Amino acid sequence: MIKIISEFFGTAGLLAIVTGSGVMGQQLAQGNDAVALLGNSIATGCGLYVLITLLGPVSGAHINPVVTMHAWYQGSLNRIEAIRYLTAQFLGAIAGVLITHTIFGQAILQVSTHARSGTAQMLSEFLSTMTLLMVIRLGTKYVPEKVPMLVALTVTAGYWFTSSTFFANPAVTVARSLTNTFVGIAPFDVAGFLVAQLLALATHLFCIRNLK
Amino acid sequence: MIKIISEFFGTAGLLAIVTGSGVMGQQLAQGNDAVALLGNSIATGCGLYVLITLLGPVSGAHINPVVTMHAWYQGSLNRIEAIRYLTAQFLGAIAGVLITHTIFGQAILQVSTHARSGTAQMLSEFLSTMTLLMVIRLGTKYVPEKVPMLVALTVTAGYWFTSSTFFANPAVTVARSLTNTFVGIAPFDVAGFLVAQLLALATHLFCIRNLK
Amino acid sequence: MIKIISEFFGTAGLLAIVTGSGVMGQQLAQGNDAVALLGNSIATGCGLYVLITLLGPVSGAHINPVVTMHAWYQGSLNRIEAIRYLTAQFLGAIAGVLITHTIFGQAILQVSTHARSGTAQMLSEFLSTMTLLMVIRLGTKYVPEKVPMLVALTVTAGYWFTSSTFFANPAVTVARSLTNTFVGIAPFDVAGFLVAQLLALATHLFCIRNLK
Amino acid sequence: MIKIISEFFGTAGLLAIVTGSGVMGQQLAQGNDAVALLGNSIATGCGLYVLITLLGPVSGAHINPVVTMHAWYQGSLNRIEAIRYLTAQFLGAIAGVLITHTIFGQAILQVSTHARSGTAQMLSEFLSTMTLLMVIRLGTKYVPEKVPMLVALTVTAGYWFTSSTFFANPAVTVARSLTNTFVGIAPFDVAGFLVAQLLALATHLFCIRNLK
Repeated sequence: MIKIISEFFGTAGLLAIVTGSGVMGQQLAQGNDAVALLGNSIATGCGLYVLITLLGPVSGAHINPVVTMHAWYQGSLNRIEAIRYLTAQFLGAIAGVLITHTIFGQAILQVSTHARSGTAQMLSEFLSTMTLLMVIRLGTKYVPEKVPMLVALTVTAGYWFTSSTFFANPAVTVARSLTNTFVGIAPFDVAGFLVAQLLALATHLFCIRNLK
Repeated sequence: MIKIISEFFGTAGLLAIVTGSGVMGQQLAQGNDAVALLGNSIATGCGLYVLITLLGPVSGAHINPVVTMHAWYQGSLNRIEAIRYLTAQFLGAIAGVLITHTIFGQAILQVSTHARSGTAQMLSEFLSTMTLLMVIRLGTKYVPEKVPMLVALTVTAGYWFTSSTFFANPAVTVARSLTNTFVGIAPFDVAGFLVAQLLALATHLFCIRNLK
Repeated sequence: MIKIISEFFGTAGLLAIVTGSGVMGQQLAQGNDAVALLGNSIATGCGLYVLITLLGPVSGAHINPVVTMHAWYQGSLNRIEAIRYLTAQFLGAIAGVLITHTIFGQAILQVSTHARSGTAQMLSEFLSTMTLLMVIRLGTKYVPEKVPMLVALTVTAGYWFTSSTFFANPAVTVARSLTNTFVGIAPFDVAGFLVAQLLALATHLFCIRNLK
Repeated sequence: MIKIISEFFGTAGLLAIVTGSGVMGQQLAQGNDAVALLGNSIATGCGLYVLITLLGPVSGAHINPVVTMHAWYQGSLNRIEAIRYLTAQFLGAIAGVLITHTIFGQAILQVSTHARSGTAQMLSEFLSTMTLLMVIRLGTKYVPEKVPMLVALTVTAGYWFTSSTFFANPAVTVARSLTNTFVGIAPFDVAGFLVAQLLALATHLFCIRNLK
């Protein structure tokens, strides 16, 4: 039970940080989106390090359905546990967005109009998710104590070097369709991102099974 | 006695960093407050890491009345020690603000006109303080050697993802009412922030007592 | 074989990060190149830390022909291994640039028009490469576990304190001639940078042989 | 002898980083000095961490006459060693500035016109130097392995929270009078900074002798 709570609050915290720092950046940056992205990416990296460091010992700090599905496939979680983790992550992610809207005095329920579509962005999401899974895999294998730092820095860099700004997380993707701010994604474009992310998971699993 | 001095200088240092970097950012950023906030949040995170690392071995580096009241409730400090800590923190915080005014050649005594009010911001402060207490609690339990880094990164991120910019500290709140700069808070709004912070402390103590 | 793959993907990753964050910065920064350089340098530092930490145990994480030639000269690699490393690095670097063009929806094949010439910039590249080699040398000797951090921070700082923005890597130099973006270098200027980098390698080897 | 070379190159490196990143920031930031200061302070922090980590095992990485004079007073260095260290630091600092002018294609010899005067700034320098000495003292005592990080973060924060931007180093102060760029200081104002820095050293030594 404590693990489910950990995944819920972890994903809620992640989305509150991502969305809140996006709102703050957009409000203050006078239209210079690169300055907003600096705040957004630095805050997200700092927050991820804290969340993964503190919740890792509790629930493994997946806070990402792709990571949970990977663990399920590998047998670290059984089916019931996996479904609970996934549920906690999606609900937590949505809760995080709603909390941000509340503390910034915005309408609580929003729908994004931020278009993020096209093959280029889907390929970007595919590569982002591949990168994240590979960082977690190699990190866990060689330097497990550094995984929080590695994931945090990967995502901070990822915001900058990918055209899709490195969502790489289905719960994050769905939740960000519910905020019409800097970090939003139009609901119509969610499916493309999810397909790319799941395809990356499948490719990753295929590779580690067949290459040795 | 050395502990009281440590808390005084620690809180003075914290406020000098917060206020000074706010003044510098505002003076140089040509109205782009996101750039000012970048400098302000990065400087505060760097400073907090240094202060907590160096003063932790001396006094525990509370530099926050909420943390001291928590320690008092838990029995790590007795009533007299707690009152001395709190006094040192409030006086230190005010000293830090006055030092900044002096070295920036400003009027030493100022009163802020920066409105920070409304339910949204109070809720933001409540959640900020809850977050800070939880980070300290989990950090102390699982990774005590990383607490300085965890607190520093939490506050750097917190400046960005909360509408109240993560005061989460009654001494900081009171002292910042005495500076009419980027980081100020109008005296009339101090009470709301303090209520939110103390409510968060009470909620935290209630939770850890009743949940297990 | 795994080592060659590691060098290929490492250098591809490095170039994808350098180029991608340069494109993102340029697109969003409204002409304020210092803001673009902040994103570019922070993303590069974060990415380098991750790449060197994870690929170090696999292939040594050279991802730089100068480092490989140094290792070859020192006898850590034989001639065939060195040629394979170098091939993987140049191909990987070019692949990284092409990937970035693809995910940002740009023309895949480009030629840079960004002039980077003159004695001052060549001297800058010479000193950059000397600095990088010295950091790796002293780091490997005194604090091997910190080499990823030392290299990452050296490059982040190097983007700012040198007029050539610290290429210090022949594979990076060649590949960046193939992108007409923020980080490009006109093909005509590549030779000057390569000469400076190789001269730095020769000077470094000469020094460590004759000074003791 | 190797120690003197280490102090020379360390101080040269420090000044090359400080001056170079200042020039780069000023050239690119379109007049937004807060953006320039972000690049300047981040590059300086990164560079200081690298320099102190690598040269600490060689010469102690003083790269600051105040630190050397402190060590001399404490008996860690004798008079001849101290004079050699100081000479290396001042010559290194000047060399660093000239290198930056060269690689940025500027006039090699310059004189700053950047006024930094008045009691407020002198007090700021006094407090900066006191802070630096205290950080080194407490760091060396409690967490010697973290001194490079502590000094680096102190200076990065110091650029932001002090009106004098935390020179805290006589060699840096003298050398920066020789560059008419973002980081310069008019020669006429050098004396005031030096007096403040030496007064801080004297105060520090007085305190640690009489307080116990």
